[in-house]
Amino acid sequence: MRKSIATVSLSGSLSEKLDAVAAAGFDGVEIFENDLLASPLSPRDVRARAADLGLGIDLYQPFRDIEALPEEAFVRGLRRAEQKFAVMAELGADLLLVCSNVSPAALDDDALAAAQLRRLAERAAEHGVRIAYEALAWGRHVSTYEHAWRLVELADHPALGTCLDSFHILSRDSDPKGIERIPGEKIFFLQLADAPRMAMDVLQWSRHYRCFPGQGGFDLTRLVEHTVRAGYAGPLSLEVFNDVFRQADAGPTAVDAMRSLISLEEAARLAELPAPAIPTGVAFAELAAVDSGPVRALLGALGFTRAGRHTGKPVELWQQGGARVVVNSAGGARREGPALTALGLETADPAAAVRRAEALLAPTLPRRRAAGDAPLEAVAAPDGTELFFCRTGGDGGPCWVDDFPPVAGDGARAGGAGHTGTAAGTDRGAAAGAERPGTGAGAGVTRIDHVALPQPWHRFDEASLFYPSVLGLQPNESLDVADPYGLFRSRAVTDPAGTLRIALNVAPGPDDEGTRPQHIALATDDLAATARWARAHGAELLPIPDNYYDDLRARYDLAPERLAELRELGILYDRDPDGEFLHCYTVTVGRVFFELVQRTGGYQGYGAGNAPVRLAAQHAAGQGHRPPR
Amino acid sequence: MRKSIATVSLSGSLSEKLDAVAAAGFDGVEIFENDLLASPLSPRDVRARAADLGLGIDLYQPFRDIEALPEEAFVRGLRRAEQKFAVMAELGADLLLVCSNVSPAALDDDALAAAQLRRLAERAAEHGVRIAYEALAWGRHVSTYEHAWRLVELADHPALGTCLDSFHILSRDSDPKGIERIPGEKIFFLQLADAPRMAMDVLQWSRHYRCFPGQGGFDLTRLVEHTVRAGYAGPLSLEVFNDVFRQADAGPTAVDAMRSLISLEEAARLAELPAPAIPTGVAFAELAAVDSGPVRALLGALGFTRAGRHTGKPVELWQQGGARVVVNSAGGARREGPALTALGLETADPAAAVRRAEALLAPTLPRRRAAGDAPLEAVAAPDGTELFFCRTGGDGGPCWVDDFPPVAGDGARAGGAGHTGTAAGTDRGAAAGAERPGTGAGAGVTRIDHVALPQPWHRFDEASLFYPSVLGLQPNESLDVADPYGLFRSRAVTDPAGTLRIALNVAPGPDDEGTRPQHIALATDDLAATARWARAHGAELLPIPDNYYDDLRARYDLAPERLAELRELGILYDRDPDGEFLHCYTVTVGRVFFELVQRTGGYQGYGAGNAPVRLAAQHAAGQGHRPPR
Repeated sequence: MRKSIATVSLSGSLSEKLDAVAAAGFDGVEIFENDLLASPLSPRDVRARAADLGLGIDLYQPFRDIEALPEEAFVRGLRRAEQKFAVMAELGADLLLVCSNVSPAALDDDALAAAQLRRLAERAAEHGVRIAYEALAWGRHVSTYEHAWRLVELADHPALGTCLDSFHILSRDSDPKGIERIPGEKIFFLQLADAPRMAMDVLQWSRHYRCFPGQGGFDLTRLVEHTVRAGYAGPLSLEVFNDVFRQADAGPTAVDAMRSLISLEEAARLAELPAPAIPTGVAFAELAAVDSGPVRALLGALGFTRAGRHTGKPVELWQQGGARVVVNSAGGARREGPALTALGLETADPAAAVRRAEALLAPTLPRRRAAGDAPLEAVAAPDGTELFFCRTGGDGGPCWVDDFPPVAGDGARAGGAGHTGTAAGTDRGAAAGAERPGTGAGAGVTRIDHVALPQPWHRFDEASLFYPSVLGLQPNESLDVADPYGLFRSRAVTDPAGTLRIALNVAPGPDDEGTRPQHIALATDDLAATARWARAHGAELLPIPDNYYDDLRARYDLAPERLAELRELGILYDRDPDGEFLHCYTVTVGRVFFELVQRTGGYQGYGAGNAPVRLAAQHAAGQGHRPPR
Repeated sequence: MRKSIATVSLSGSLSEKLDAVAAAGFDGVEIFENDLLASPLSPRDVRARAADLGLGIDLYQPFRDIEALPEEAFVRGLRRAEQKFAVMAELGADLLLVCSNVSPAALDDDALAAAQLRRLAERAAEHGVRIAYEALAWGRHVSTYEHAWRLVELADHPALGTCLDSFHILSRDSDPKGIERIPGEKIFFLQLADAPRMAMDVLQWSRHYRCFPGQGGFDLTRLVEHTVRAGYAGPLSLEVFNDVFRQADAGPTAVDAMRSLISLEEAARLAELPAPAIPTGVAFAELAAVDSGPVRALLGALGFTRAGRHTGKPVELWQQGGARVVVNSAGGARREGPALTALGLETADPAAAVRRAEALLAPTLPRRRAAGDAPLEAVAAPDGTELFFCRTGGDGGPCWVDDFPPVAGDGARAGGAGHTGTAAGTDRGAAAGAERPGTGAGAGVTRIDHVALPQPWHRFDEASLFYPSVLGLQPNESLDVADPYGLFRSRAVTDPAGTLRIALNVAPGPDDEGTRPQHIALATDDLAATARWARAHGAELLPIPDNYYDDLRARYDLAPERLAELRELGILYDRDPDGEFLHCYTVTVGRVFFELVQRTGGYQGYGAGNAPVRLAAQHAAGQGHRPPR
């Protein structure tokens, strides 16, 4: 279907908005009146600019407080409308949005409202304009789409139809099924916005918290399905008032907006996309560091061995069991300290994954390969993290791990890095700065359990749609976590089997961007043994306060020896009806720390209840975030 | 009364919180359990640290979900409580806050609830602990203070009393008068929080938007009066959950908190403070600039003349009518470009103003004087702006303008700068970079109408209490204004006569700090003439889009000639039932621009409806704020 967006959804000046909308591939725009008033472009200039960009002006909006008024006030309103019709003629727009009256002067009189809407439509028709009448959820007497449609039906004029707005309909819990009773040709326009479910004043909710479809809690798929079934053939148009989008650059927001509509069309079976090739695990996590000494030392102390080194670049592959970490010391690292800059995602069909990513406007990255390297398809996530689609140990074709042959003298086993994902027997090798424990099974790490990526403040909504739509991952519930300097929100995305887990979190304000640490969580089947091994080999683990364990004793009936072991090793504990979660942390190196985790039973969480204790401990260790002065 | 604060109200680690609380002069703290759990300090360490700082531990909190439970669950809860009593013994705390049960397991059975509260109190008493039972506004069966008190009365144990929390009481619109029916000795504790009036889920409202008394919309004075009348003699204790305070540095937040309690005590007539000496106007606005050329040129073009120059410092006084601008080119300016760093406030009794400011913990500044200068008392506002209490042209004693003798050759009139505040006849003088129009009445500016100061994100709440409490100014309604890159909030404070107006505004996020422009609004009785004069003398005025005037025509029945004049000069127009407001803007120099305003009738506003147009015009002129990437 045709795709549009209201200019109010984006930041910047009107011409900046038009540029961003066109670049994201929209067909048209709704011009928000205040954007025009504040623009140095005349309506004719705007028309020309939009035409140059290939954009239609699908709607001019909003016109307010016109129907159900005493005659004199209505006539004044008609004069105002005439001036708008003139502006629309210059703009080349023929559809005007009229919102239901919110003025205290409005009368509770459907017959009068319909008669005046008819008179407005008659005037409009003389100027070649049509009126799309919409119920605001907080309209004085008209606040439901059914009521707005009754008035349109009563007024019965060809230049008068209704505009449906998903926010106004779903925020009131109206049933969208009734849309099918409206003749499709009388639905002049469809405005779409999602929103998180919030119990708050609907006007404030609407003005500040709308988001793009798929980023909130509304069932927009069903609403669109009903509307299409009614016979509606006009644009799907986004009208989103959102405090974060208002502050962010319009370009990426417009792409995010377009992705939400493409994804919505797929969900409503209006368009078909390449099916997702859902990743099933982390093939590798890549740490970039100008000085990789400290992170290599830490990896060694955690039981990793150097499995290979790239022949042409200062890039190493470290491995333990099925956990692989690529350490990249090449120049151009975006950050000073070690930082997690890329993830390899285990994907059965990398080419299919890229086809879907492209269809959903994910920026694809140039294939990363030196001469002779196995090709790796990649896209950029909203926060800039590079996501590589890998098939480790597949059908015998070239594999990315082949690019990292063992280093002579490392004592790595003959086959090099494991292709199977369970190469628990890899020998330990030499690491600059790390001790050399000889051969052995390492510290018992089996795989990467999850990675946690702090998202820039203005990219969190985009990320919460990107991972599910582009990669086919499932979003978990969103949680608030207390840090010594502010609450942050955390939300994980996982594959259906729960073998790939990415925790996205966002700090409360933009000052935090780039300063919150990332982390890699490593799974073990015996956390106490792994922690002891790591500590014995020089890993510095985050100390956890005694008070935490005193409280743990009050909360759970843990055996005294077990509690003593947790306390001794700084292991945090959580439990839910499905199982247990044990976890501990290393200190932070650069922007990164490691978590060691053990899950028992069917525990699916991340120990979020312990996060404040971990964050306070990091703060105490001088590794926390600092407040503004 | 004794003053306390809950540690959850402040950011940082527990020991950082204790330091900040003690430095702000509090008598005691409520220890929030999670702060203790996350602290490396043992309970005994915390007790010792608090004692060293002179702080009592007035409450340990919260204990949850204990009453009205099936027996087995209650007994488990009692075991948990025993462990808390042990912690409290080490802490030296003897009062435990128990919140009304929110668990789905809680039974709707007052007799059972009271019996179990009694059993809890019996156990507590064995450990020398008392229980303060509080109704959460979202408690499962107990959600009002009256109900909580009924259970306490029913339980009838000396170690059991009630805790009153202003948020839980006032967010539900309970009448606090009923507090007087509770015997004062059974009110074990009083927690205070204010909050803006918001229609939203009460739990979210409570967790994110509480603020200190005087910063929100609750009548805390009345609540405190009723509680004191009931015979309560315990502490006034602040318990505030606020997203902004969580992120800001604890030190200033604690001072802000203390100021709110001192101010509340005064309002409830529990303490007397030096009366405010309410300022009545802007004596001067001071612009600091390393290179003052551009701002001097702009002042000259706006009709200001150099009235004098400080004898010992590179500081000049510029004047037109009763408007005075001090231009300070001395080193150490905090910002590169011209920035508004100080305000002189016309004050009948500067010494009294400083006494009150000190009583309310405003940081006083060293008296600014060179040898021979008239003394000037000053305090720092929350955003760092220096506020000088001036008495211009008073009883013949030394006056600050005497420090700026006329410059030989400037042609200023013999008497130097005017002392009367209406020196409209001051001759124009020479200004580097500005043309020299000879003598005349300038551009018709009569006085400074208002100044607008963007507040740092984490200082806005503090400022909204500081100006009313310290200076005795009245806060106006708060408004949302749309900028091309985000909504900001604006709130003015004024003296009763409306001759001193300071508009405080806050950007949506911390990234904006220090980048939004400040402005000085100059009053004239004939804006068209003033704008023409300024334009003729080289002032660059902000261009306003034609579209704005087309819309103005649709909204108001302005005479065509008048509309044409507004359009020609870029003058914005607003009207309310009391009068009209005309205003236009200069371009921005450094961080500052000037507004020229004309008020007719009793118009008291600031043309907020036009702010989006002005902001977009500044954005178009390349002088707007830029978004994060």
